Parts: sequence; structure tokens; C-alpha cells
Amino acid sequence: MSKERLLGTSVKKHENFSEWFSQVVMKTRLADIRYGLQGFIVHREWGTKILRKIYEMLEEEVERDGHEPVLFPIAIPLRFFEREKEHVEGFAPEVFWVMKAGDDELEEPFALRPTSETAFYSMYSLWIRSWKDLPFKRYQSRVCVYRYESHTRPFLRGREFPFFETHCAFATHEEALEQVKRDMQILKRVVEEKLFIPFVFFRRPKWDKFAGAEDTYAADCVMPDGKVSQIGSTHDLGQRFSKAFEVTFKDKDMKDKYAWITCFGPGIWRILAGVIAIHGDDKGLILPSVIAPVHGVVIPIYFKGKEDAVEQKTLEVKEILEKNGFKVYVDDDKEKSAGFKFNEWEMMGVPLRIEIGPKDVENNSVIIVRRVDREKIAVPISKLVEEFAKQLEENDKLINSRSKRYHIVHRAKTFEEVKELAQKGGFIKAPFCGIDEDGEACADKLQELTALKVRGIPLEEEEKPEKGERCIICGKEAKYIVWLAKVY
Amino acid sequence: MSKERLLGTSVKKHENFSEWFSQVVMKTRLADIRYGLQGFIVHREWGTKILRKIYEMLEEEVERDGHEPVLFPIAIPLRFFEREKEHVEGFAPEVFWVMKAGDDELEEPFALRPTSETAFYSMYSLWIRSWKDLPFKRYQSRVCVYRYESHTRPFLRGREFPFFETHCAFATHEEALEQVKRDMQILKRVVEEKLFIPFVFFRRPKWDKFAGAEDTYAADCVMPDGKVSQIGSTHDLGQRFSKAFEVTFKDKDMKDKYAWITCFGPGIWRILAGVIAIHGDDKGLILPSVIAPVHGVVIPIYFKGKEDAVEQKTLEVKEILEKNGFKVYVDDDKEKSAGFKFNEWEMMGVPLRIEIGPKDVENNSVIIVRRVDREKIAVPISKLVEEFAKQLEENDKLINSRSKRYHIVHRAKTFEEVKELAQKGGFIKAPFCGIDEDGEACADKLQELTALKVRGIPLEEEEKPEKGERCIICGKEAKYIVWLAKVY
Repeated sequence: MSKERLLGTSVKKHENFSEWFSQVVMKTRLADIRYGLQGFIVHREWGTKILRKIYEMLEEEVERDGHEPVLFPIAIPLRFFEREKEHVEGFAPEVFWVMKAGDDELEEPFALRPTSETAFYSMYSLWIRSWKDLPFKRYQSRVCVYRYESHTRPFLRGREFPFFETHCAFATHEEALEQVKRDMQILKRVVEEKLFIPFVFFRRPKWDKFAGAEDTYAADCVMPDGKVSQIGSTHDLGQRFSKAFEVTFKDKDMKDKYAWITCFGPGIWRILAGVIAIHGDDKGLILPSVIAPVHGVVIPIYFKGKEDAVEQKTLEVKEILEKNGFKVYVDDDKEKSAGFKFNEWEMMGVPLRIEIGPKDVENNSVIIVRRVDREKIAVPISKLVEEFAKQLEENDKLINSRSKRYHIVHRAKTFEEVKELAQKGGFIKAPFCGIDEDGEACADKLQELTALKVRGIPLEEEEKPEKGERCIICGKEAKYIVWLAKVY
Repeated sequence: MSKERLLGTSVKKHENFSEWFSQVVMKTRLADIRYGLQGFIVHREWGTKILRKIYEMLEEEVERDGHEPVLFPIAIPLRFFEREKEHVEGFAPEVFWVMKAGDDELEEPFALRPTSETAFYSMYSLWIRSWKDLPFKRYQSRVCVYRYESHTRPFLRGREFPFFETHCAFATHEEALEQVKRDMQILKRVVEEKLFIPFVFFRRPKWDKFAGAEDTYAADCVMPDGKVSQIGSTHDLGQRFSKAFEVTFKDKDMKDKYAWITCFGPGIWRILAGVIAIHGDDKGLILPSVIAPVHGVVIPIYFKGKEDAVEQKTLEVKEILEKNGFKVYVDDDKEKSAGFKFNEWEMMGVPLRIEIGPKDVENNSVIIVRRVDREKIAVPISKLVEEFAKQLEENDKLINSRSKRYHIVHRAKTFEEVKELAQKGGFIKAPFCGIDEDGEACADKLQELTALKVRGIPLEEEEKPEKGERCIICGKEAKYIVWLAKVY
């Protein structure tokens, strides 16, 4: 571990969330924003290790779902983009262009991928031949994408950010829609069940879909400032890209048909931002055990003349825990006080702390301290493994039970109610006229008046308007109960 | 597994190595060269899985050596490059430039990293403060670098290729040179001991060092066509970059000093190219067990009326092996003959094949077949795990023992001998006048006359010229026995 000093955040989370977030990012060495190029940050040690864990979980999930890994070039030639009209229109304003190399102007300039649909499907047209090749499910992981954004913030919006994308081709639209649901389940298992971030999975309004998609499905979580953050999306691309890129297959009836394509992008950065923002407290980060680079930090508490016994016990504890598959770090830096170390490792969000002092050596026991509630538990060495596992789980349970406090969902019936609730943050459910092209004008007006955006209707458990309910904007009969929120 | 057909290579390895190599790359789905942009290839399923294993091995090794992971931006602003004169001169001709985004000309154009020294050290100047921060060892993995090369070939030379780099700062030059040796050991453990690629680790002549380094140390392996391929390099950067980027530390004597920096780059692609080229045979790939995506493929051999029993035994075998930590794939595709599958999986380089037919079911046994020598071993189910492990090891041993056949080292005393031996391929050791600036003219002349390059002197077991030996070019008294070779 580096000797750089952590000094705690100078603001409280509930008083100045934005500043608190920035300080936690820098002080726990998640990232460094001083690289000197807007929107490009350095992922530091702690951040890199946590991102890796998030990637590993997603890789495991999509592989179990039958996806195979591939790696595509960063370079997207202009001619690829131009094949799907909506796609190029949507992405052109935010694409970085490479036009020169050495002293040469490139004959064919290329974009840095803002996303990889056009790259994947140009190859799918070569790789997919017959119905026997379908479903064809591939993904790429641990790459970055590049978008020319004007407002950037670490882990929320960057010009460069870590990406994960799956691209699947199917024989029928039904199978494609099944994949959308499986993508949602994958996101649930990782983000909700293991990282304890509550979210809602929406079908987005037509005016808010991915450029080139038939329909976009996306997940939003509520951040502590009441705004929502999209932490993943999956797209029913229909046959648009397969027509643009000639992704065809010979079906059982020997006819050539266009494939049905879906793509899925969990938001690697946004997931981490959710963990930081939703779980963290005034002491710093709080990490769920699955992504904690270390499960526990062991802190020997030295007293003069008893250093050896404490040191020996510390090594013993480390050995026992590591042999049982736990990742443990011993902080035996003698230049820092124990109290200083406690603060430091609480800041880093390590789930459990083990304190070992001379008295503990005498009793052949240790003290385990949970990060979330700082509860102290005396544990005899004979029960160390069992109790460490139990307290790790307990810490996770506490994270989970606290995680719902920002996930607020209001129900409004009128525009006045919506306007009032908009001050409180979270989601507002309200009656609305339409989520296809017909609702766009009302959505624009709503956003102008309240800064709220229509996030769509949930994929699961859709609520229907009550009889007589009317669109909060135009007053026409409501067709949907849509979810509204302010958005990152 | 995809249904795409593998049909074997149409040429023999020893008759047309270059064509054999290209066919193996495409047919085993290591990569696809049809992306349509020179020097940018798609890493396919098999290649992506193998690269991942190579990365994992290196990550484990450098972390054990005390390196922590970080991730740096792809973007290198011009002002970073310009701070180290030799570095910018060396890299400027091969750098891709991003100058436009959307419709805007960028105020500050940036390069796509051709390597990351300037990015790392611009941050090291912020991160390193005191001797207590040293040694400061970081690495980044699973990123690509970008170089504007004119001749490109998959896994040998690309405009985009996978990268791995460590960057270390030390208080003294001695410690920096110790790191160079540790880097060599890391490369040895991965490339020589686990992947069975023999190599020699050289100190490169001064005229062939990395742009901005004091000294470059690099590893070459001999490819089947007799040319050598650099599979990794580590650089003693001295204090050049620390002076350029103000990487200073307050030493124990309270004086500010410049750090001593080293960086290490194992050649991810070149290592894989070595595996393909050196181990492969006319049947296709041969994979060492540590990087094989599957250790064994189980092929049920169906006979009419006995399908169920065979199928059941197949599942049993798979389960037993997986429970014991082996990665196994069952190829139960009923549209392909067993013989076809044998060829297919030999092509893919899977270490072991397990055949299960009705007779094997009766005997409660299976046949294990080794990839390298196709030796068949009948194994009772009761000994399956033990024997599978043993044969996997046996297959690795065979790979290892065959791996030296291209690693030829000749010794020449005169230019005539060198010229003759140059036809045979491999290394030639010969007396030479100098490996600092003083030898460059002779090296240029040698290359002009023979296409041989001076690779340097080995870091270990350096041979000295015999008394009276003279430089093969200028005839002056020889100071070194240098190693010569034709080079990829």
C-alpha cells in the first residue's frame, strides 16, 4: 500500500454530496483527475482492482448465458458508420476522429469507437451463415469507448470510459426479446443481488432510444442527490443493423433471412458510481464483499515489549484466513497510530477490520469490527474462519438494508403534485399520454417546466392508469403510468 | 462452439511456414484479418481466451513482485511527448493523432498511446513524494497500443496490438538494475517454464535501444523460419524521464533527488505468435495446458441403439473432471462424424481428447489421446482424474522437449562463416568490435551485406572473445561475442 495519506473527507455526504463524491474518488485512490485532458482520468490502484471485480462478475454471467469473448478494434471506419442512418446521425456529433499518423494524412480516417455495433455486425455478416449458427452470442470486455462529451465527471460521464458489450443474433424476434429479459436478469444478479444497488428496468420512450434501435430497455438507480443514473441498457435492434450490414442466415426452409439483433451494455462506471454514492458514508467508501479488493485488514496494536507476540499472532491470523480463501491485508506500518489506520481503512471501505493487541494475544482471540456499523465482536481464534465469514455476510446485509433509503418512488396524479414532488428527488409515477412518438411533445414540455424526464415504463409489473386519469401535461386520457426523474 | 467448419491447413508447416501460420490463425478462430483496415484485426473467441490466460499469468507474476494495477488514458497530449527529446523523435513517425471530434477541431490534439511512459511519469511526479513511497511499482494490463506500421501481420506486427506494461521508480540505479533482472525472471517463468518457448535475454546494442532509454534489455526467440522474434523488453530509463517529468523524491537525507525508472513490456502478441509457430504442427495448434481454453474435449462415439449409455458415460466423465478443476468440453454434435471432430479439435490444439464408445462403456473405461504424439491410453474410470492429470503433464513435457528444435545457436569466427551460417537461420555468435556507439557502423554494414542484425550480448553467461579474435566486419580486436540473427 502506498504511504500517501488519507485525511477523511472535509464535507459531509448529506451536506454536499457532489464534493463528498469527488473527495472519496481521489482520496481512496479510485481515480486521479489531474491527468490534464478533459474527460480522461487515470484509474488508480483501488479503482482498477474494483473495476476488475465488476468485469469478472459480468464475464462470468454472460459466459454462463452462452456468450463467447471476442475483442474488436478501436477503429471504426467512416464507411461502417454510414451504413445505418439513425446510428450515424446519433453518434456523429460525439465521435473522435483519427485523421493523421506520423506525417501522413490517413487515406481512410477512422473514429474511436463510441460503441461497437457497426464493427461487430460487419463481421457477423461473414461469420453467420446458417440457422445452425444461431443464436450467435458474443461479448467484449475491458475495453474503453470514446465520446466527445461537454460535461464530464469521474465514473459518471467521460470522454473515455470502461465498457462491456454483448451482441447477439437470433433467428426470430421472440428469441431476441427473450434475450432482453435475460440481460435484465444478468444485471439484477450482479447489480442488485451482489452489489445491493436497487434499480428499475424500463422500456424507454421511443424518443429516448439508442440511435439505430427499435426499442431500448434501460436500468436506473436513484443517487443520494435524488437524481437517477442509468446503470445499463439493452437494445432490441430489430433487423435494422442486419439489413444495413447484410447479416443473413439460411433458415431451415432454405430461405435467406435477416437476423434479429440485440446488444447489451452494463454501465461499468455507473455501477461503480452507484456503489460509491449509495453505500458510502461520512467515513468514506463502503464496499460489498464481492468487489472489495481485500475482505479484511488486520491491524496489530503494538505495546512496548509485546511487539513480537502481537506480530506472530497477526501472521497466524492472516495465514488462517488466506488458507480459507479470504483476501486479507496486514497493515503493520509502525509509523502510523492504530487510530489513524482505523480511519484510513474505513475510508477505503474494507468490509472488516481485525484488531490484535497484547490482551487479544493472551486470550487467544481477536476483535472483528464491521465497516458499516463499527460493531466490535470478540472472536476466539478457534472460531476465526466461521466468524469472519459470518461478519462479512452481516456487513453485506447491513449494506443491503441501508441501500433502499434513496430509492424513493412517489405517485402523482396531477402536474401540481408532480411539480411539488420533483423537489424531493427519486422517481415520480404519473399518468401520461404516450411513450411513442405521440408523447414526445408532452415530455419536452414537462422537462422544460420541471427538469424531469420520462424514464419509461417498467419492464416488470407495469402499472395501468386508473379510470379517468389524464396526462399531466396535455390532459388527454392517460394511456400509461410513466416514471419520471431528474437524470445524470 | 460455433458450427463453422475447420478443414485443416492446405500447406505443410515446413514447406510454407508463412502461409501455414496465416491459415492456423484464421481457421482456429484466433483472429480474423477481414476487418477492412490495415493493421487492425478482430481477436476471435479462441484467441481472446488464450490472450486472457497470458494476461492472467503476467498479472499474477507482477503482483507477486509488488506491482499494483492502474489504468491510464489512451490519449497522450503532444506536450507530454515533447518533454523527452529522444522519446518524441523515436515515436513521432509512428503515432496516430486525434485532431477532430464531432465537428470541432480539438484545441489540444492527442496521440493514441504508442506506449505509456509519458503518461505514467506525468502522474508519478504527483504521486511520488518521499523515499518512503519507493520502490513505486505499477502496471497496466489488457490495453492496446497504436503504431503506424507499414508492414503488418497478425500477432507479429499491428497498428493496434494488446499491451502490458510495468513502470517502476527507485531510489538508486542499483535497485533499478535489480528490477531489470526480476523482469527477466518473470518472463522466464511465464514464457519459458509455462509456455515452453526458449529465448535469450540480451542487452541490446546502444543503437537499438528504446527511444529515451539508457539501456534496453530484450528477449528473442527463434521462429521456425529461422528468424528471431522479440517477445519482451525491459528498459533502464535511468533518470532521463524523471528529469523530463520532475519525478523527484525527498530522500532520507532530506535532499530532493530524481528517481531511477525502469519499464517492462512483455510482448503479449509475440508470445502468442511463439506458441502458434514453435509448437504447432501440420495438424494445427498445440497449446500448453496453462493457456488451453479447455484441457480436454470429450467425444462420444455413438452406435445405433447405444446412444443413451454413451451419453450417460460422457456426462459422468465431464462431471468427474470438472469437479477436479479441469476444463472440459463435450462435443456431442451428431451431425459430424467422430473422425471429423478428432481433426477439428486437434486443429484447435486442445491438449487431450477423450473418446467414449459403447465398448468403453462396457469396460467402464475411456480412451485418452494426447495431442502432441496422438498416443492412445486406455483408462479405467476409477483412475480417470489421476491419469488425465498425468497425460496433461505428459503432453506438456512433449511440447517442451520438441520446443528446442528451432533454437539453434551457431558460433562463427569470420565474416565468411557468418555469411554461410546466415542461410541456416537461428542465432550466430560472432566476434564484434563494439555494442556502444562505436559498433554501429559495423552493424549497419553487416545488415546491408547479410540482413543479419546485432541482437546484443546475453544478460546471463556472456561469452568473451578468444585471444586474437577480430571483429567480423572492421577487423579490429573484438571486444564482444555478439549474437546475430535475422529479425521479425
